[in-house]
Amino acid sequence: MQTSLDSVLARTDANHPEAVERLKAFLRIPTVSTDPAFAADVRRGAEWLVTQLREIGFEANAMATLGHPMVVATHPGPKGVTAPRVLFYGHYDVQPADPLELWESPPFEPVVVNGPHGPRIVARGAVDDKGQVMTFIEALRAWHACAGGPPCPVTLMLEGEEESGSASLEPFMEAHRDLLKADVAIVSDTGMWDVDHPAITTMLRGLVYVEATLIGPSHDLHSGLYGGAIANPINALARMVASLHHPDGRVAIEGFYDTVRPLPEKTKAQWAKLNFDDAAFLAAAGLQHGFGEPGYSAMEQTWCRPTCDCNGIKGGYIGEGAKTVIASRASVKISCRLVADMDPEKVYKQLEAHLRARVPAGFKLEITSFGRNPPIRVADESPYLTAAEHALTGVYGVGPVRIGTGGSIPAVGSIQRILGLESLLVGFGLDDDRVHSPNEKFELTCFRRGSLSHAAILHALAQLRP
Amino acid sequence: MQTSLDSVLARTDANHPEAVERLKAFLRIPTVSTDPAFAADVRRGAEWLVTQLREIGFEANAMATLGHPMVVATHPGPKGVTAPRVLFYGHYDVQPADPLELWESPPFEPVVVNGPHGPRIVARGAVDDKGQVMTFIEALRAWHACAGGPPCPVTLMLEGEEESGSASLEPFMEAHRDLLKADVAIVSDTGMWDVDHPAITTMLRGLVYVEATLIGPSHDLHSGLYGGAIANPINALARMVASLHHPDGRVAIEGFYDTVRPLPEKTKAQWAKLNFDDAAFLAAAGLQHGFGEPGYSAMEQTWCRPTCDCNGIKGGYIGEGAKTVIASRASVKISCRLVADMDPEKVYKQLEAHLRARVPAGFKLEITSFGRNPPIRVADESPYLTAAEHALTGVYGVGPVRIGTGGSIPAVGSIQRILGLESLLVGFGLDDDRVHSPNEKFELTCFRRGSLSHAAILHALAQLRP
Repeated sequence: MQTSLDSVLARTDANHPEAVERLKAFLRIPTVSTDPAFAADVRRGAEWLVTQLREIGFEANAMATLGHPMVVATHPGPKGVTAPRVLFYGHYDVQPADPLELWESPPFEPVVVNGPHGPRIVARGAVDDKGQVMTFIEALRAWHACAGGPPCPVTLMLEGEEESGSASLEPFMEAHRDLLKADVAIVSDTGMWDVDHPAITTMLRGLVYVEATLIGPSHDLHSGLYGGAIANPINALARMVASLHHPDGRVAIEGFYDTVRPLPEKTKAQWAKLNFDDAAFLAAAGLQHGFGEPGYSAMEQTWCRPTCDCNGIKGGYIGEGAKTVIASRASVKISCRLVADMDPEKVYKQLEAHLRARVPAGFKLEITSFGRNPPIRVADESPYLTAAEHALTGVYGVGPVRIGTGGSIPAVGSIQRILGLESLLVGFGLDDDRVHSPNEKFELTCFRRGSLSHAAILHALAQLRP
Repeated sequence: MQTSLDSVLARTDANHPEAVERLKAFLRIPTVSTDPAFAADVRRGAEWLVTQLREIGFEANAMATLGHPMVVATHPGPKGVTAPRVLFYGHYDVQPADPLELWESPPFEPVVVNGPHGPRIVARGAVDDKGQVMTFIEALRAWHACAGGPPCPVTLMLEGEEESGSASLEPFMEAHRDLLKADVAIVSDTGMWDVDHPAITTMLRGLVYVEATLIGPSHDLHSGLYGGAIANPINALARMVASLHHPDGRVAIEGFYDTVRPLPEKTKAQWAKLNFDDAAFLAAAGLQHGFGEPGYSAMEQTWCRPTCDCNGIKGGYIGEGAKTVIASRASVKISCRLVADMDPEKVYKQLEAHLRARVPAGFKLEITSFGRNPPIRVADESPYLTAAEHALTGVYGVGPVRIGTGGSIPAVGSIQRILGLESLLVGFGLDDDRVHSPNEKFELTCFRRGSLSHAAILHALAQLRP
């Protein structure tokens, strides 16, 4: 006899007060992955999750990596049912809490306070990503209570290094392909459109990040004695950087746009209906004027168009006052955000060729790569996407919007590349959650309805055949 | 009865062994002007000079400034003789000695060691500028011994802040115009062509130095969330910097070359005879290729053509690794070297206008000025120059070359502007003297012949009528 979704949703709701207490317990563990001083706490966080997951019928372990443990849990799903296996991805580590003095309550002593959307929980990791991880664990808990387990086979992979570079993630996935085998992935680390409108992120930009160092003279020179007779590494680097764009804002790297897939008219129309407020978007950055590729709105520029931005530049004398020096070298960090179907390897080579073609005679250019992530675009016609949309509509009474995000989630690219899985990015954060900042918070209504959503999504996916 | 120059030169030579001891005593005083910890030593250096100068018949004082003392000494010259008053300028402060570990002997314990040109004295300040200051003081000592004083009226102005920005120099000169009144200035802080060929520097480049800070967003932004939709301050600053030059190396600031005085054919021909070794000049900087304004040799580019160089640039994340940030601001230090007859005020305004015209919409540009010095060019037909050349020819058996230098000596500009005096730049340093570096040295042959030269120059100038 099939368990009714209604009973699972009712149980999820009934569990909510205890769920908040469980989330608080989780938030009290300061799982700061980047700081070795917290290593034991990070391990404690992993073990806490293992306990939670074993309680609800999962085979769960904190598995060793070269860094922090990877929590992996599996459940076979109901006997005799052929349904897709769902892989949930999330992370249990958090950003450092500093600057501590800006917190209104201690970052690892979660408190529930009232806000415009009702109660919210304030603590480091509240939304990124412990609160979001607990939305699907609470959904699984309700399924366990009502039906003895989830309606389909489920695997969880919960990382402890997301906030410190995910060094172990790909090697772990490479080494455990069989254990992590699934049909679709669900990632809860993104946001909603607003508190009452759920969203599924179907586009993520990829990233190519390099540091380029231009090396000219063998040592710093007196700008009086040499100035005018030699190429200045800072001026030359500035010319190289300036050449990356056309005056109108388009990227000028040869071949850069060749494989960019245009936005489907249907998506374009859907996005237009969102009434994205360009002025408010710019005002939040203290700006009145946009810039960039002509013919696109700010939303399109950040969600579905590629970029080339400098993230840092350094050369010569950068202290106070004046020093009449010609630097021997200057360096710049450059990142390109990629959209479907750009290939990170190809963009890296295009960028490198562009820069190398502009090195002054006799100068050297050293390029260091800091990672290449592919862009993500979920197929418009994916049955998993449709099922998830159906489930979210049931919970919110309104269909989720399909949105893009200008950022990258490297794990999604790795899941695609190594496990061959499409990811559904269903998250419950809000724009004002202060991710990575003091007084990070998660709305309890988002936590509750997020848990209901995952319960419903599991139900919907279980109707599909893998 | 007029004293014969020969007797003065003979006395200068005879004094040489003691002169080396006096120079050593001077070098033992660590007159590091930039470090307040040495303030008492700087004062001691000034008082040491006052004692020296009183010994040889000068009225000398260490005069108060807001910073370190200014040593001023005057002598009326021989009674009943109408000759030009000569103002000697030099500085008694020195650069800090660090890195100490690279010195082969302690920086303030002068030692005489042998080199390819015979004995040399090694210490901080050996050539810059204590050794050079002592060349003219030793010349004056010999004149005092042989003739009871110099053959013409003489004033000395010896500064204690040259290595730390000369903050008191101009205010002091403004306040003491009468005391410093003279007909011509002699500055000994430059170099020879080589150890056997004296030089008079007749061209000095001026300087306009600014820091420009471009301010865009109100705070650093996530490059994923905003990248593509807003102007990036680093990229925009790079475009501004790149626009300062034409692709062929000419400066692209409007009006920049308008008042540049062409090099006279005669000077051009004289310079050609110097056989300046462009390849060696570049090799000393670890380079094989020159750059810059087409149609000029490296010597011309650095001696008589103006420049625009970045001296430092900074923006965004400059630590190790990657950070996906769009910086709210980026800044660059830019200096222009000026040649006759460029006006620093006008160039400053041209540079500012050039940059402001390229600020992205809604961004702000803050410009800080770090000084403006005029270019110097001694009149080709100056009788003082001719007299000094004649004197140097007598000492070296070969005429001095008229050279330029790409650097600036702010004091020369101040002497011109405030006191209305032309400066004869007669110096005895060599290119390998390690000015500002560990193991700074001064060849004793340069010290000895420098002293003879000043004795002869005084004689030659005394023949002129002011």
